[in-house]
Parts: sequence; structure tokens; C-alpha cells
Amino acid sequence: MSTNQPGPSASFGTPPPPKLLSGVKNIIAVASGKGGVGKSTVAVNLAMVLAETGASVGLLDTDIYGPSLPLMMGICERPTGDPRTGLLTPLEKHGLKLMSMGFISDEKTAVIWRGPMVHKMITTFMGQVDWGTLDYLVMDLPPGTGDAQLTITQTAPLTGAVIVTTPQDVSLIDARKGLLMFQQVNVPVLGIVENMSYFVCDECNKRHEIFRHGGGRRASEELGIPFLGEVPLDPRVTLGGDQGAPVVTFAPDSPASQALRDVARNLIVQLEATAAQRIPLPTLNLTGIGK
Amino acid sequence: MSTNQPGPSASFGTPPPPKLLSGVKNIIAVASGKGGVGKSTVAVNLAMVLAETGASVGLLDTDIYGPSLPLMMGICERPTGDPRTGLLTPLEKHGLKLMSMGFISDEKTAVIWRGPMVHKMITTFMGQVDWGTLDYLVMDLPPGTGDAQLTITQTAPLTGAVIVTTPQDVSLIDARKGLLMFQQVNVPVLGIVENMSYFVCDECNKRHEIFRHGGGRRASEELGIPFLGEVPLDPRVTLGGDQGAPVVTFAPDSPASQALRDVARNLIVQLEATAAQRIPLPTLNLTGIGK
Repeated sequence: MSTNQPGPSASFGTPPPPKLLSGVKNIIAVASGKGGVGKSTVAVNLAMVLAETGASVGLLDTDIYGPSLPLMMGICERPTGDPRTGLLTPLEKHGLKLMSMGFISDEKTAVIWRGPMVHKMITTFMGQVDWGTLDYLVMDLPPGTGDAQLTITQTAPLTGAVIVTTPQDVSLIDARKGLLMFQQVNVPVLGIVENMSYFVCDECNKRHEIFRHGGGRRASEELGIPFLGEVPLDPRVTLGGDQGAPVVTFAPDSPASQALRDVARNLIVQLEATAAQRIPLPTLNLTGIGK
Repeated sequence: MSTNQPGPSASFGTPPPPKLLSGVKNIIAVASGKGGVGKSTVAVNLAMVLAETGASVGLLDTDIYGPSLPLMMGICERPTGDPRTGLLTPLEKHGLKLMSMGFISDEKTAVIWRGPMVHKMITTFMGQVDWGTLDYLVMDLPPGTGDAQLTITQTAPLTGAVIVTTPQDVSLIDARKGLLMFQQVNVPVLGIVENMSYFVCDECNKRHEIFRHGGGRRASEELGIPFLGEVPLDPRVTLGGDQGAPVVTFAPDSPASQALRDVARNLIVQLEATAAQRIPLPTLNLTGIGK
């Protein structure tokens, strides 16, 4: 068992006050049926691209087992609490407000938690960050369809979810599971992103489909979900991610960055379509009738 | 919630009878700190290579959230129970005895379980498979350091663990967590495998380090753990895995297959070294003394 369980345990079990997220217009979960598909990479870069449009954007890394945001954003400092409110203030970098379990736990310690502890931890963590007013809060979910994901999808008032997959069949089975999870908790899936879609050799321009290709689009068609785009493999994605500079900043003109901008544009379109469906019908105020 | 929770629920909560695994000489867990590093690919191919040596080998896929063994081994049938013992009989393919959560659950259903259900499911599952006599049982663990992993490492009498990682820093942080998990439950780590180590263009022979390179070896040196080898990226690994033919069968002469055979050889060396450490000192039977 981990001996240094982070977080203010005094309020464990208290559900997060809904008002804490009431200043956030769109809460977008970035999910994957399995890990290692580049979900965090997509989440971080989508948040960056959304911020490039002038929007105020927060990024919440909820992966308690393998938080990658500290490294990907190059953050070593720890967040401070506001003594007046008792809430954590998000850190800021690359124009984003950031919070991660990795900011408050030791990266060299295995975080081994039993299910009920996971539930309490996430609920507490989500309720104790002061995001203020945001246009978008991008939530990087833990991979899979387990306890933590279930807690998060039930706790946060999600606007919608983005599912990241790799092209091959094994990952698609997992992506379908992610989709079914969101359907079961009534969260609209805004679209699928195929990451690690292909690789182009920069010496001879040969295109390699290392993890196969096209499964993301096929899954979106099969499942009736928008396809947001495909992002190629590129060593600069890894290199930037390991140096705290997401690829859209590290190599803004690379094909991977251009692909990520396309994905963000398609995401905004889907968010607007979803919002349009949610607008309530106008209330007719017919005076004099029924009096 | 999933509506079709698989498994014989009548015996949920019953710990597995230790004798069920007593015929297994070596139980090897294949783990990773995060998902998508190719842990299942390494586990499946290691099991195949061990069987190539003439050993009797079983492969247990314990990833309840994203079981990939059915697809990777090309298995559609379901295991049958032995009416005399009430135990499940493993399926057989490519010379291996196989069992997976994927054999008994519907691949299109999200498996969403709360922690305590995970614990019961795994304990039941592990105790209800009749492996018989085996030289090696390779256990493909779920990725990460959560509930399921903790249950498995505490339940099965593991001989040792292999940690699979990808080269870059983000994954190494996660691999370290996996290592710490095994140390906390006193399971020896037999070594680290660096998967997706590099990619060689088959057109111009340029070598690409798409996910960087060398992190596995560095981690093994830093943590004082054997380095078992590095496995290159190769489209045939994915293609074979998606067609039910692991790469060591699908493309036996490929550099990836050769690398996997090297890893298996190094693993056997480490198993022998670990066994040598475990052999008790001979009991001296000095007759006539102390009588």
C-alpha cells in the first residue's frame, strides 16, 4: 500500500459542491478504452489549440494511477491552496489552467488504492479545485472503463466525451467499451480520434501503417459517432511531450500539429451541434389565456 | 453497469484453492505501469517462445477491462467446464493452454465494475481454471497499479514479474510504479523489456526512434533490475496480433520475432538465477549426533 496518500483526507467522502464547476461552459472528457493510445497527448494538445482560439481553458488530469500532465507540461511546482476558501488554485502554463494528481503525489511512489479509496479520492479532488470561469475544461480520464472512470462520469456534469483510439482491432474493441460506458451514463460522445494513425519516413517519404489504419473511422461509422480526425505518428510528439512542450507548441507546423488543429475544429463544431440540441424551447407567455 | 456479469457468481468471495496452481512450476506475471505498451503482445509471444522449447505453457489473460487474448490468439469458442470438478478447462491453440476473461464476457459490453466486484471476480476466476501440470504459466496482468493488480499479486504464488515499457520518459515513470508495486508485495522482478524500441523503414533502412529509445535499459540500470531486451516496432506485430497469429508464428524470421526470442532466453536465465536463490540449504542428516 502507498504510505503517502495525497490530498486533504479530512473531507474524504464529501461530494464536490456543484457550484465549483458552475463557471465552466463546456466540460469535455477525453477517454480511451485502453491506455497508451495517446489519450493524454490528445487531451493536452486539444486544450492548447482551444486556448489558441482565445478561449479560457482548463486541463484536469484525473489519471490517479499514471498522471502524465506534470511531465508533458513541464511542471515541477505544486499547487497552493487559497486560505480563504480552502480550495486549490490551478497552476498555469502555456496559457492553460492545470491540475493533476501528479502535482500532489510523489512520482516514484506506486499509487495502489482499493476501489472505495479511488472513489473518495476523485470526488474530493474534483471538488477542491477552484477553476473559476472557463470556456472549456478538458478532463483527461484514466484509461479503461473501471472504477475511477465510472465515478468521474457520474460526478462531473460532462458536456460530452472524446474517445481516442489507435487504428488496430484490439484497440477498437476497447474503444467500443468506452463508448458503451458513456452511453450507459448518458454522456454524449462528441467523436472519435484515431491517434498513431500512420508514419511517414522523413528520408524516403514512404508511408507506414505501423498499427494498421482506418479503424477509427470505421468504428465511428459503425457506431454512428462523428469522426474527428486522424493524427500521425511523429517522434516530435514524444519528444515535445517529454520536454514539457506539447507538439502544437514544440513543432507547430508539423503534420501532427496540423492534424490536432483539425480535430479541435471538428470538436468545436460537434460541441455547437450538441449545445443546439440542448437549448430549451422558448416558453410561450400567452397572457389572457386560461384566466 | 454491465448487465451480463460473467462467471459463476455462486462462489464469489471464495479464495482460490492453492492446489489448483500447485502443478505449475513457474508463474510469471507480465506487467506494465500503463496500458498500450504492448504488454499483451509481449506476454503472448513469450509464452509461444517458451512453448517452442518443448515446455508446457499456459497463458492467463487477467485484464478484465480490456482482454485482448481472444483476438490475438484468434479464439472465438468458449471454454467448457468439467462436470466432475466444476472447473473450467483452458482452451488450446498454438500449443498453449489459454484462459481469458474475454472468453466468458461479451466483447461489445463495457465491463464496468466497482473495486470489490473486481476483487471477487479475479479471485474466483483464478481459482476455477484447471491448469493441470505446467512448466510456465504466463499471466498477462491488467495495466497499471490498481485494484486488480493488487489482488492478483497477492493471490497468485508468483515466481516473478516481467515489466514491459516503451522507451519514453512518461512510460518510465509508470514502469517504476509497477516495479514498486511488486517490491511492496515481495515478488521478484525478473527484468524489464523495452517494447516499441525503434522502427526501421523497409524502403530506405532509416532507423526512427518514434517513441525515443533506451529508456528501458536506463531504468533497469537505475533500478538494479536485469534488462531482458528491446523489441522493435513492426507492422507485422500488429497484423499478426489482429489475425490471431502472434508475430513469432506470423513472421518468425522478422527482427521483432528474433528480439522476442532473445527476451525469452534472458528470462529463462533470470528464472534459473531466482530459483537457485530459493533452493533451501541441504539438510545435514548426521546420525549419531545428539542422540
